[in-house]
Amino acid sequence: MKNQNQKIVIIGAGLCGSLLALRMAQRGYQVQLIEKRPDLRDVTQDAGRSINLALSDRGLKALRLAGVEQDALKLCIPMLGRMIHDKEGNTFMSNYSGRENEYINSISRPGLNMLLLDAAEAMSNVEIIFNKGCTKVNLENGIATFKDYNTKDEITYSGDIILGTDGAGSVVRKAMFNDRNFLFSFSQNWLTHGYKEITIPAAKDGGYRTEKGALHIWPRGEDMLIALPNLDGSFTVTLFAPYSNSDYCFDNLTTPEMVMAYFKTEYPDAVTLMPNLVEEFFGNPTGPLGTIKCSPWSSFGKVCLLGDSAHAIVPFYGQGMNASFEDVVVFDEILNKHESKNNESNDWKKIFYAYEMARKKDTDAIADLAVDNFHEMKEHTASPLFQQKRKLEMAFESQFPTEYFSKYSLVTFNEDITYHAAMTLGRAQDKAILNLLDDGKLTDDMAVKEKLALVKKETAEALHDDEVVGNL
Amino acid sequence: MKNQNQKIVIIGAGLCGSLLALRMAQRGYQVQLIEKRPDLRDVTQDAGRSINLALSDRGLKALRLAGVEQDALKLCIPMLGRMIHDKEGNTFMSNYSGRENEYINSISRPGLNMLLLDAAEAMSNVEIIFNKGCTKVNLENGIATFKDYNTKDEITYSGDIILGTDGAGSVVRKAMFNDRNFLFSFSQNWLTHGYKEITIPAAKDGGYRTEKGALHIWPRGEDMLIALPNLDGSFTVTLFAPYSNSDYCFDNLTTPEMVMAYFKTEYPDAVTLMPNLVEEFFGNPTGPLGTIKCSPWSSFGKVCLLGDSAHAIVPFYGQGMNASFEDVVVFDEILNKHESKNNESNDWKKIFYAYEMARKKDTDAIADLAVDNFHEMKEHTASPLFQQKRKLEMAFESQFPTEYFSKYSLVTFNEDITYHAAMTLGRAQDKAILNLLDDGKLTDDMAVKEKLALVKKETAEALHDDEVVGNL
Repeated sequence: MKNQNQKIVIIGAGLCGSLLALRMAQRGYQVQLIEKRPDLRDVTQDAGRSINLALSDRGLKALRLAGVEQDALKLCIPMLGRMIHDKEGNTFMSNYSGRENEYINSISRPGLNMLLLDAAEAMSNVEIIFNKGCTKVNLENGIATFKDYNTKDEITYSGDIILGTDGAGSVVRKAMFNDRNFLFSFSQNWLTHGYKEITIPAAKDGGYRTEKGALHIWPRGEDMLIALPNLDGSFTVTLFAPYSNSDYCFDNLTTPEMVMAYFKTEYPDAVTLMPNLVEEFFGNPTGPLGTIKCSPWSSFGKVCLLGDSAHAIVPFYGQGMNASFEDVVVFDEILNKHESKNNESNDWKKIFYAYEMARKKDTDAIADLAVDNFHEMKEHTASPLFQQKRKLEMAFESQFPTEYFSKYSLVTFNEDITYHAAMTLGRAQDKAILNLLDDGKLTDDMAVKEKLALVKKETAEALHDDEVVGNL
Repeated sequence: MKNQNQKIVIIGAGLCGSLLALRMAQRGYQVQLIEKRPDLRDVTQDAGRSINLALSDRGLKALRLAGVEQDALKLCIPMLGRMIHDKEGNTFMSNYSGRENEYINSISRPGLNMLLLDAAEAMSNVEIIFNKGCTKVNLENGIATFKDYNTKDEITYSGDIILGTDGAGSVVRKAMFNDRNFLFSFSQNWLTHGYKEITIPAAKDGGYRTEKGALHIWPRGEDMLIALPNLDGSFTVTLFAPYSNSDYCFDNLTTPEMVMAYFKTEYPDAVTLMPNLVEEFFGNPTGPLGTIKCSPWSSFGKVCLLGDSAHAIVPFYGQGMNASFEDVVVFDEILNKHESKNNESNDWKKIFYAYEMARKKDTDAIADLAVDNFHEMKEHTASPLFQQKRKLEMAFESQFPTEYFSKYSLVTFNEDITYHAAMTLGRAQDKAILNLLDDGKLTDDMAVKEKLALVKKETAEALHDDEVVGNL
């Protein structure tokens, strides 16, 4: 079989690592997938870890490539739009798209991870090893050292290459950061906000206590609550709030009374659905929200980063997992182009370089879009100008479904457009619409078709103006 | 004397640390200034270190505040503009401003540093300690540990506060990075280019071998040469070139023949002025070019970063030293506002926070502008559209000197406008002019006054359009 003489060590068996192991095994490589945690199929989950995620078209495309899309869809709960909750408990629905069949899915992180581990394990050329934490990596030789958490022994694994899918706190990336022999660009940027998870349990009859088919948002300017449904009838609620320097922040929400007073004032309709609010608030950890970028992603043609280890992003576009899965698609395309035709060893240096050249501007783009969306969700979803814009975009998308795609649609439902292209066009459209609205140029007497033509014209001009500066 | 009961330890006696020590002593504090290198007044300089720098209005304002501007001006050589050298050795001058008296100055780094050390040392409340390198910092207690390079002993210094002015490789900043108790945002971004210094020696009669009153540039698209004059008749030349992946790059300029062939092809008029080219090329180190940003700049109200340790930038706007000196001006203004009125200890936590709030957006702005200018200098100074823009701006500035200030002028000669404001207005102006030129809307038959009015109108519209998006 092709590639069977080449061995790949993958460090980290989370979502990205498991899918990557499966796909590399399908391409014929000998794969060792090594994970520091115990096998999550055998143990109960950590409390307070993000247990559901948004899966959308880019992620689905990757799962399809590996032949596991249909199985994954069985775990999905479609969310058709944002359900906005105001301070009086009134709600209104803002669909994600004006087109039919464009929605995102709530999916269980451990459920999907187990599915991927099962699929990888079913391959004869995959070995999965748990309870071994990477402690250091010899980048030039492709040798990684691990600590066995059961025996406490030190053990090394080596391969033709090592792929680091060990997440935002990546040990593989730290080895690159600490290697002074090449210039490693790196950034970690933390929001001033942290997050805390709380549960809305299922109703007594096993049903949902609020609308199932939506991503719920309680936007409050500086802070917000969101909720995603789970298959068992519960919702996972996440509070996003500043750490400090605010009326309500983690630094001053220190007593049960203060927490209850805060939630009753700001989220009156939610508080009645969360019987264990106080207990969970003080029992669950407060997590930080960070963006990590770096370059180069590979060193010495021996080691390469994929997924969160290369580009961790904040969760506000629902694209973290989707972007990591899309890495596997892009890496696979690069292998189609550059994999050795005969059964010889690949030129991995060239492959890793081509992969980063093809991919990095897109992961940078989704990182920036995710931070933008943080502000949009907590502040703008409640603003009249933003709501006018969304209403107009819904009209464009429903009446001219092949002619207009909002930034959200471009990013979320158009997996054949890159994140960078989606960002560039989406931002220009937003700027055009907001300024046309602000200037009063989109009047009620105009037909939707006429409005669309004007928005397209303004968008093209905005893009051209930026191009002139960029192409100087 | 006010503040005499408070002790400040300043780590790093480079340009920023020396000026800061002087100014803090003038405010009455007890200052210990600690430097890892030997006293540069006693020893000869390292070869290959950047030995001259551009000093302009923001830096001069800081030197004026500390009473040393006039002494510094004696070390200055005015540079009125960029002298562009093409591949045939033709030159043309592009002034920095259309106004009289707007120019930048070439100044010796060690010369200015010595001047500042002398002035600080003349204060009775400053103690300067050399040959002690900081190895670690206890952030919560304000205690720093040093290694004495003479005795090899370990020694600690502590103060009411510690100010870290220990440059781009700051040990103080690394202590913050490694402290997991607070979320430290950090980025280091390297250009794909490095730099190498070479000398144009003085002529035999001690005069200058090329025009003294200019910053010389040989822009070649991917690579470039620049030269700044020194008081002794020599010029310090800097080659900026890619490390790799280019026809001419440091990775393949590996033999004297290749270096000579490269310089003769690309810089024929310069090569004749550099008799020691090959020797210096292989004798001097290749330096990296990086941007460093971080936040927060202070921790526990005990330790604060200033200068390059907080915000190292690439040298292409000639603002690195000026920005670090301006830090001292802003810090001084914050002390004027928040220093304790009685002779009590200051609330340093509040002071550091106010300083960062006032300053960070400006150091972020100049960091981004400096990277922009890298591309402008190596590529655009030679482009027709850019030259048309500069010509127009020169006409605006000379005919309407109080009405128009180019981005370069705003950044370099308008020390009472913040870097961030200069960037915002300057970029909008550039975008307006480039697009008006590109659209053919600035025609030869128009009066300069008319052109200026059109540029101002377009600039205002560009600013407004961005504001609508930003203020959503």
